[in-house]
Amino acid sequence: MALFRPWLDSAVITLSVVAILYAFLNFNTFKRVLVGSPMRTRELHSKHNRLFWLIALPILAADLYSSVAYGPEAGIAELTVNAHLGVDAKWLILPVTGATVLLLIILVTSYIMGVIAYPNGGGAYAISKDNFKRPIISLIAASSLLIDYVLTVAVSVTAGIQAMASAYPALVPHETILSVACILLILVVNLRGISESATIFAWPTFLFMFAMIFLIGTGFVQEFHHGFVQPVTPPFGTLPKALTSLLLLKSFSAACSSLTGIETISNAVPIFREPKTKGAIKAYIALGVITGVTLLGFSYHLYVNGINVMPNTTMESQLLSLYFGFGPIYQIIIWLTFIVLILAANSTFTGFPQLAALVAADSFLPRALMLRGDRLGYSNGMIVLAAFSTILVVVFNAQTDNLIPLYSIGVFVAFSVAQIGLVRYWLREKKGRWKTKLTINLIGSIVTMLVSVVVSVTKFTSGAWIIFIVLPILLFIALAVRRHYTQIANELRIDMSCIRPESHRVITVVLVSGVNRVVLNALSFAKSINNEVIALYIGFDDESIERIEKKWNEWECPCRLITVKSEYRSILYPLSRFIGRLQSMEDGKPDHVHVMIAQFVPKKWWHNILHNQTSLVIRAWLLRHRDVVVTTIPYHLHD
Amino acid sequence: MALFRPWLDSAVITLSVVAILYAFLNFNTFKRVLVGSPMRTRELHSKHNRLFWLIALPILAADLYSSVAYGPEAGIAELTVNAHLGVDAKWLILPVTGATVLLLIILVTSYIMGVIAYPNGGGAYAISKDNFKRPIISLIAASSLLIDYVLTVAVSVTAGIQAMASAYPALVPHETILSVACILLILVVNLRGISESATIFAWPTFLFMFAMIFLIGTGFVQEFHHGFVQPVTPPFGTLPKALTSLLLLKSFSAACSSLTGIETISNAVPIFREPKTKGAIKAYIALGVITGVTLLGFSYHLYVNGINVMPNTTMESQLLSLYFGFGPIYQIIIWLTFIVLILAANSTFTGFPQLAALVAADSFLPRALMLRGDRLGYSNGMIVLAAFSTILVVVFNAQTDNLIPLYSIGVFVAFSVAQIGLVRYWLREKKGRWKTKLTINLIGSIVTMLVSVVVSVTKFTSGAWIIFIVLPILLFIALAVRRHYTQIANELRIDMSCIRPESHRVITVVLVSGVNRVVLNALSFAKSINNEVIALYIGFDDESIERIEKKWNEWECPCRLITVKSEYRSILYPLSRFIGRLQSMEDGKPDHVHVMIAQFVPKKWWHNILHNQTSLVIRAWLLRHRDVVVTTIPYHLHD
Repeated sequence: MALFRPWLDSAVITLSVVAILYAFLNFNTFKRVLVGSPMRTRELHSKHNRLFWLIALPILAADLYSSVAYGPEAGIAELTVNAHLGVDAKWLILPVTGATVLLLIILVTSYIMGVIAYPNGGGAYAISKDNFKRPIISLIAASSLLIDYVLTVAVSVTAGIQAMASAYPALVPHETILSVACILLILVVNLRGISESATIFAWPTFLFMFAMIFLIGTGFVQEFHHGFVQPVTPPFGTLPKALTSLLLLKSFSAACSSLTGIETISNAVPIFREPKTKGAIKAYIALGVITGVTLLGFSYHLYVNGINVMPNTTMESQLLSLYFGFGPIYQIIIWLTFIVLILAANSTFTGFPQLAALVAADSFLPRALMLRGDRLGYSNGMIVLAAFSTILVVVFNAQTDNLIPLYSIGVFVAFSVAQIGLVRYWLREKKGRWKTKLTINLIGSIVTMLVSVVVSVTKFTSGAWIIFIVLPILLFIALAVRRHYTQIANELRIDMSCIRPESHRVITVVLVSGVNRVVLNALSFAKSINNEVIALYIGFDDESIERIEKKWNEWECPCRLITVKSEYRSILYPLSRFIGRLQSMEDGKPDHVHVMIAQFVPKKWWHNILHNQTSLVIRAWLLRHRDVVVTTIPYHLHD
Repeated sequence: MALFRPWLDSAVITLSVVAILYAFLNFNTFKRVLVGSPMRTRELHSKHNRLFWLIALPILAADLYSSVAYGPEAGIAELTVNAHLGVDAKWLILPVTGATVLLLIILVTSYIMGVIAYPNGGGAYAISKDNFKRPIISLIAASSLLIDYVLTVAVSVTAGIQAMASAYPALVPHETILSVACILLILVVNLRGISESATIFAWPTFLFMFAMIFLIGTGFVQEFHHGFVQPVTPPFGTLPKALTSLLLLKSFSAACSSLTGIETISNAVPIFREPKTKGAIKAYIALGVITGVTLLGFSYHLYVNGINVMPNTTMESQLLSLYFGFGPIYQIIIWLTFIVLILAANSTFTGFPQLAALVAADSFLPRALMLRGDRLGYSNGMIVLAAFSTILVVVFNAQTDNLIPLYSIGVFVAFSVAQIGLVRYWLREKKGRWKTKLTINLIGSIVTMLVSVVVSVTKFTSGAWIIFIVLPILLFIALAVRRHYTQIANELRIDMSCIRPESHRVITVVLVSGVNRVVLNALSFAKSINNEVIALYIGFDDESIERIEKKWNEWECPCRLITVKSEYRSILYPLSRFIGRLQSMEDGKPDHVHVMIAQFVPKKWWHNILHNQTSLVIRAWLLRHRDVVVTTIPYHLHD
């Protein structure tokens, strides 16, 4: 069958169109199947069952810990692939990872101070709002974080799909579509509403941590038998000629993408079991230790075995296949990597909407972001996040390497703002051993500011400039939105002591199309609520106008008929002109003009295409362009 | 810049989104630029300036004559490419084209009888409606023609683009997108309104006819010098072993696609200058002669020069380059071929909407197809035609060869119905030399019926089965549409002598969100037109409900406030339940429930995203699910 393919295509197109139409017109049923039945508001507070810190740890760790799968690779790729330094540069993965782990230690310590200062969960936005008077500073923190949340979804999902594609090369050409499908799946799951604290999320991350430790252990055992320097091990300590300090910083910046997600615990202190501050601190320390060990061990084995950066298979996959072949252990660890990276994207679907809702509550973003959906999540925020990350994935062809340069700048900017905020907090509060804490946050703020500058400068030309265009735009929008809401609030305020509803004179114009039951219906309603009713007929030719005038006279209808001829076969403009004349009458000008339009409501939605949808167009146009009240009188067809 | 491509992509996406949004929200300006300013209804009749037949001929000939560019190729491809008969089968192009020309002569003669019988222009639909009582038969003719019009656009445009791609191979990978762009361009030009009788359309077809005759003449001169049998000439008269009569019929069916478009003149008799019947007959004879000569001459030279069917270059292009190289003459003729094929598609944009409007006037299709657009054309029909032909082009990857199997079945079915109709006409009318005419149409009807059967059977498995699924569906829809309109007309009819508008009791429910200017506005209007006004507040929590009740008491508003708590944070369902209770009250049940909703109308359209669009959702839902009247009270924001 030569025509099998076109036939299939057309079937797919037809089915999709029907499905979209159906979904659109039976939105409610569709939504119920997808999202589930609505939940009561009071179910919100029963959601959080407090967690023991050892369970909370893996749940909150997915975002940070999953980064070990792509962080070291991103760092070394800068040197060997982008700068073509070759095999001599490979040992540099060790000092670069070392610097990253040092930064990790500083960040963990600083964040523990944040947990002590804000035991009820203080994200960068809350901390900076509390410590800086001018809203622009907390907005910088919030916007940076929002941008980075979008990038987290894009980077985690594409990295997950790339891990899978390393194991199943058949997936390589479909990475973009698979990544988009993953994002949509995560969106649907989150719209259905999943608790951030569901313990089921603890297991994959636990297992993944265990697997990584197992991988590192296997590596040491193998090296113990075959030597810590092997034939494939690249030379150590040689400095390639083309190496510059800028290149080293670039490599460090890329590797820093392993540190995103470190703020999750400090945002989520309230989900820990009492004493929650202590639990959070324990979780931070444990997470810091295991992430540091993994980064160092993983990088070391990558170096010893001389693993290369390759286009369609990750370094992790290469190391795994070296130790375990492509058997079940390889499969299990690749699947765990994939699941944990998806969980990292998933946790962002809690973080982004919560932050957006906080910012919207301060009137800096559209208020729709504050509405809780049927399942109590901030659905609009989730949809926005999914939309933007999908655009990123599509534009960057689902290649993690292309996305990394944009990534982590936002996080470090937000880190810096939060750290400076904490410094101001300790200077103000001066309680407990505040001088130690102040010192820690001072060091933290200086280091994060330095890293922000390094990351911004080194990544600027390879894509980070986009961030420096988007960030000011976001700030501008936030301030404009707030100004708009403030002005409207002022405009709408009334003096309750003296202004009350009053009666006005209203002229009702009923659009008629002939003498039939629909028109009768509309005129009866108009007569019931108002005495001044005009029936208006707009005809396209003289014959139809004469016909209705004759019929109207025969009918002996109690209200006046006015006919207008429309030479351009449009109802809109003659109607608008007629309303204009009513509104500017010299004597007897009414306070309100009230337009009534009848509308067919067929039993079956697809019958709508059999009836001209003029009433919708007229209504939309009139509301926008004229100060009239528009009433729609439905006529429910029996057929 | 490694990121140039993604950057460009995202710019294109952003610009497109902005453009679509802008177009959508400023639809009017957008439409004016695209379509031009509206025209008065009375400009319609001045449009047709009657044409001398020699000018009318090329205008109406584009559809038929352009088919010579792909007809013979489609016929021979069946034998040499699809059936792999090889070089021995090539001479069969001569008898196959001969049979096609014979059929052409029969059709032209029959159609001349049609012109004599229906001098005011009788398409297959009009003729069959006039001669068969049961509407199903004229509907079969109309549906077949509508399907074939869609195919004409797809086939002509893709053939035109393939002609261009033969000359400029760089276009080959972009054929689909170019074809779609062409269809959209033709659509826009037609929405702007072009007269079918614009003499500017005469020239390309005239020049193309001249060019084809020139090509054939050149061929004869060349053969006179180099011999009528050349080394490359395939053997004549050999019957390949694998040749079956079914294959011959298949080849003939494919070649018959050259005959589509023959009905154009009979549809357009009124545009001829008086005596219009004579003019139309002259045009038919001239068109028949030139098409026949071209088909035979073109096929003969294809045979003598042993031209092969090749994937990315048409036979016409090969013959042209053989005679003239790739110089200016080649370029001119390829461009003319392209232009005339586009004109063929263009003429369909007059035929399809006119036929659809005729069928819609008989209530068999949605009435929207009868509305004349701003520029007096049937815009909706044009858009439907463009949409369906675009789908065909995309599904079949813009390959003319894939589309040909579906093509021309509809035309022959319509031809047959029209011919049988004419036979009945002559039997009924019995005027003039009716017996001769009867005989001609009898032969015509038998031949076209035979051809219909042959075409359907031979093409069935290679795609024509689609037609036999679509055709019954179209018929079913047409009858269902008519039934729907009839039932509604009955439902709406009223007895004018005894039924008149009467006053009823109305309860007005005003949705309030607080005490502010918007609410004040709505309540004032409600009070002005009705005495029974209830203010309804739907709150999501107890605090907000207490707050508004307290405020309302302070305000001393003259109308009653009812508060409802919505546990699911939805306004829709509590409102709907409240209306249900009002409508089923035991005592004092009102005749109508009237819901008033205030809606913000911001100065700038994009401010809409800052305000929840709940009012639109509520209105749409209420109209569909409850028998209530809904009034929208716009509040025009100053900011």
